[in-house]
Amino acid sequence: MSVSIGENIYSVTRSAGIASDAFCGGRGLCGKCRIIIREGRELLSDLAESEARFLSNTEISDGYRLACETMVKSPGDLVIEIPRESQVRRQRLSVLGLEREVPRTPIVRKYVVQVPKPTLDDATADLECLLNSLKPTHGLHSLSVSYEALKKLPEILRSGKWTVTATVRDAEEIMDVDPGDTSEKRYGFAVDIGTTKLAGYLVDLGNGSVLATTSMTNPQIPYGEDVISRISYVMEDKKKLVELQTTIIDAVNRLLGEAVGTAKIERKDVYDVVVVGNTAMHHIFFGITPDFLSLSPFSPAIQSSLDIRAKEVGLGVNSGAYVYSYPIIAGFVGADAVADVIATGLFEAEEISLLMDIGTNTEIVLGNRDSMISCSTASGPAFEGAHIKHGMRAATGAIEKVWIDPDTFEPSCRVIDETKPEGICGSGIVDAIAEMFKVGILDGTGKMTKELDIPRLRHNGERCYVLAKGDETVTGKEIVVTQHDVKEIQLAKGAIYSGISIAMKRFGVDRNQIVKIYLAGAFGTYVDPESARMIGMVVDVPTDRFEFAGNTAGSGARMALISSETREVARSMVRKIKYLELAAEMDFHEEFMNALYFPHKEIERFPDVAKLIKTATL
Amino acid sequence: MSVSIGENIYSVTRSAGIASDAFCGGRGLCGKCRIIIREGRELLSDLAESEARFLSNTEISDGYRLACETMVKSPGDLVIEIPRESQVRRQRLSVLGLEREVPRTPIVRKYVVQVPKPTLDDATADLECLLNSLKPTHGLHSLSVSYEALKKLPEILRSGKWTVTATVRDAEEIMDVDPGDTSEKRYGFAVDIGTTKLAGYLVDLGNGSVLATTSMTNPQIPYGEDVISRISYVMEDKKKLVELQTTIIDAVNRLLGEAVGTAKIERKDVYDVVVVGNTAMHHIFFGITPDFLSLSPFSPAIQSSLDIRAKEVGLGVNSGAYVYSYPIIAGFVGADAVADVIATGLFEAEEISLLMDIGTNTEIVLGNRDSMISCSTASGPAFEGAHIKHGMRAATGAIEKVWIDPDTFEPSCRVIDETKPEGICGSGIVDAIAEMFKVGILDGTGKMTKELDIPRLRHNGERCYVLAKGDETVTGKEIVVTQHDVKEIQLAKGAIYSGISIAMKRFGVDRNQIVKIYLAGAFGTYVDPESARMIGMVVDVPTDRFEFAGNTAGSGARMALISSETREVARSMVRKIKYLELAAEMDFHEEFMNALYFPHKEIERFPDVAKLIKTATL
Repeated sequence: MSVSIGENIYSVTRSAGIASDAFCGGRGLCGKCRIIIREGRELLSDLAESEARFLSNTEISDGYRLACETMVKSPGDLVIEIPRESQVRRQRLSVLGLEREVPRTPIVRKYVVQVPKPTLDDATADLECLLNSLKPTHGLHSLSVSYEALKKLPEILRSGKWTVTATVRDAEEIMDVDPGDTSEKRYGFAVDIGTTKLAGYLVDLGNGSVLATTSMTNPQIPYGEDVISRISYVMEDKKKLVELQTTIIDAVNRLLGEAVGTAKIERKDVYDVVVVGNTAMHHIFFGITPDFLSLSPFSPAIQSSLDIRAKEVGLGVNSGAYVYSYPIIAGFVGADAVADVIATGLFEAEEISLLMDIGTNTEIVLGNRDSMISCSTASGPAFEGAHIKHGMRAATGAIEKVWIDPDTFEPSCRVIDETKPEGICGSGIVDAIAEMFKVGILDGTGKMTKELDIPRLRHNGERCYVLAKGDETVTGKEIVVTQHDVKEIQLAKGAIYSGISIAMKRFGVDRNQIVKIYLAGAFGTYVDPESARMIGMVVDVPTDRFEFAGNTAGSGARMALISSETREVARSMVRKIKYLELAAEMDFHEEFMNALYFPHKEIERFPDVAKLIKTATL
Repeated sequence: MSVSIGENIYSVTRSAGIASDAFCGGRGLCGKCRIIIREGRELLSDLAESEARFLSNTEISDGYRLACETMVKSPGDLVIEIPRESQVRRQRLSVLGLEREVPRTPIVRKYVVQVPKPTLDDATADLECLLNSLKPTHGLHSLSVSYEALKKLPEILRSGKWTVTATVRDAEEIMDVDPGDTSEKRYGFAVDIGTTKLAGYLVDLGNGSVLATTSMTNPQIPYGEDVISRISYVMEDKKKLVELQTTIIDAVNRLLGEAVGTAKIERKDVYDVVVVGNTAMHHIFFGITPDFLSLSPFSPAIQSSLDIRAKEVGLGVNSGAYVYSYPIIAGFVGADAVADVIATGLFEAEEISLLMDIGTNTEIVLGNRDSMISCSTASGPAFEGAHIKHGMRAATGAIEKVWIDPDTFEPSCRVIDETKPEGICGSGIVDAIAEMFKVGILDGTGKMTKELDIPRLRHNGERCYVLAKGDETVTGKEIVVTQHDVKEIQLAKGAIYSGISIAMKRFGVDRNQIVKIYLAGAFGTYVDPESARMIGMVVDVPTDRFEFAGNTAGSGARMALISSETREVARSMVRKIKYLELAAEMDFHEEFMNALYFPHKEIERFPDVAKLIKTATL
């Protein structure tokens, strides 16, 4: 690839589609287009002022530059690396989360066997004929048979002319038999049951590939936006649980129907299902009362993993299939959090990592391979756009990225699908507030300043900052961030930070010891870590320690489909995860009050942020 | 007990109700009232002529007498033993079969536990709380939980104020939980599914006692009297199997309903079900196609034991209960035969025994603890009264016992419930034919003699012998044994004997080595072994080697309820039972043809019978 003299690197990397998409459009304002010059530093322009601001001294000496500020001065060969943190935005479009390589050992396997026909001299029974043929060829020595498979076996053996495919679960049970060779047809379905959103993944168990991805809004939303309100609904009477369970089972069946339609396969060839969800979603899915999750001591009905016949739950897959759920940790740290830990590999690393699956509840896991601590904070639905004046879900027309010019206080916004804006989604509101705080529109207590006299900032009525004027929007009405919106975000981020903070105290680490922060969940995938750090939603560590993990609940679920070892790993892993009930922690209230500040009442906890703030009125 | 001088022993033993019920009413004609004089032989009358006929020399020297022929002559002390063969008739009224003592280790057990409540500091999940309490108290370390039990657990723990009863299956699975202490309520249901009759036994799993016994005619009879005709019905189309299965499941549910009603317990407290039946009944009960049982090589769908959720089969018992079936041996030697072997203990004995479960199919098992051989013969429904001119089931009004005066050729009949006769049942027809042969009315080929000119024997039209005259019967019409009836019995007994004979040849034993013959099944319980031997239906061994085993299929089923070890015993035992497919045996046809004779074409096979025959025209 060639770059003309005088051209900046950003223009090339961007047009080639290989690198970071800077939010400020290449104006040296966002610091997102970081590159590393491996060879040819001498051919490039000198370090710009903005680069000095965004890059640490170590980074500079390592060859880091901002692509938009780096001009080619002389001819020659350049070797440029695009670091992961700059590539990361590319994952924004991916519905698949971070996923580690795991051995491809699905719990369900197919075996094609030639079964010897019984004779008058040796009229061995059909099942025993089949078992005898499976033994020598495949070393399957003590198999049982599912009732359904047994019932069809005599016909199948004869219609397949004694060549049949036995589908075996966990090297233990013949769950199905087909005539002839159907070994290619074996699929699994992984489902992430979010409070707000459902995602389904149809996986080829043979090669581990994802054949179809489907998603939909959780149809339980009308019964309550958050987990607690749904539990309240169920508590009204016993029929409500069945109602909610039916709702979710029907939805999963719809997801499955779409997925098998897309992949052009048959439902009966789906032999395994994995569901993950928070504890309440898990209980409701399985028809277990979630009532006691909302009553102290908030204990769940079961902690260990579940294997239930899919038929018994009502899923329309192979009649011998089971639905598996990872174990859960506590009433508010569920199987989805376990899937997060599995997918990120946090439990295997020597280094200490922090995992945050940000949603209506934010699950926090901190630790390493030796031990982990987990807790859950009620962060509320603000990050999903709820309770925010112009909040909306992260869909077409949502402002997802905001930058405010520190001199003019004029905003730049990026809108999903590059349409006119219609509202603002979670990552957008966090960005907006972080920028407002950074440029001094907000003070540390979250109040909008009265001192600035700028057109974007209105003081009459409820104070607000105008992100988009009426003539710029889809609706023709302006899009603003209100003082109340700021309050909502303060409560949400305060809950998260105080959870992290207490987990760190109990675990006995300080922020510098945290080598990696995984941001998981839909919001976690889109939020700008720098903004998150700016408002004090996360601990103050260098942003290159952040990793966007995406929908790790979904990828963890897929890993359980692909690899039976993963289930065993989860079983032993959860024993290492201590659960911290924040409600029972004496210092939670104080931590929470202090965490309402931007970035925190104790600014010394955020030294790097302090350096970036234009005006700090703490 | 005192006996007057001049009185015979029979009058005392009979009135005291402790001994044999002679068929001839104490006339020295039937030889059934055998007693053994242990002390005081010198006080008694001399041996009568009839005693010399019925007792062997060894028996005589051992102190055997016939009670009706033994008079007290002098005062003094007598010690009299009633040998088992004379007591045996007492079992005739019992629906319970022979049953060995087995360790009382039902597969389902109940544990009452005080579960520690979770706290904020230790919010252990409900299931894990329960598991933790079961571990130390009861040593149950790796329990799973049924889906139904899991779903109700949170409510049960709280409604029981954390004292609950866990019902555990096989020390493996918590199948149910109740609030408080319900440990007294644990029941099981054993069902014997005969082709013709169903019998159900409600058992208290705590003490092994039978709380209720219920029986009914198999409602599948309209679909075919025998197994083969029912299989033909099923083969018509796939829906017929469901129809037949539903019929039998409904019937078992009715039996169960009656039993729990009698015992005043609840269906939900029935935690275990055992069914036994021949292979076709077994397959139909479980909804497995029996089609291939009627096609060479007659192989069943499964040989090993079955454990199926009772709910899946459609039984109305506890929702966590399983229905167990013993393993089966072959297409025509089923779980009922395994139950027979278990109940009689044949598989444990050093001595060689022969077991015959006589029915539409007669299952034969020969062997000892080292090895066994089994086969099945199509003996047809004649022993159940079918295809016999005046045949009827063994119910009120059936002639069940016949004796013919060798001098006058006049019959004496005993009728079930001592009413006027209405017809003749299986044991009656065998008796009648045996007596007819013994006194010379029939010759060895089964023909009715033309030489006797007696009023009871009619020569015009089809030859027949009049058992009861019109004025003696319920219907006002005479009851006869026809030449065709004789033919039917010849075919039936010929099938049985040839099966036994080939089994003996293959096993390598002669009749003298057979130390015990178990007669099982309803007919087997009522048939007179002497008559059976007389017509050549069984091998010629001393009749004291016969043991009436009764409904051993039912008792074997109860043993599996009471003792989990019994199931394990059955599993390893069936491996020692070789199956002999008579249809594949070259000598079967010749054996069968010879076995049509009374008692056999080769009379030397029946030396004891030969001695007893008045006229042998072989």
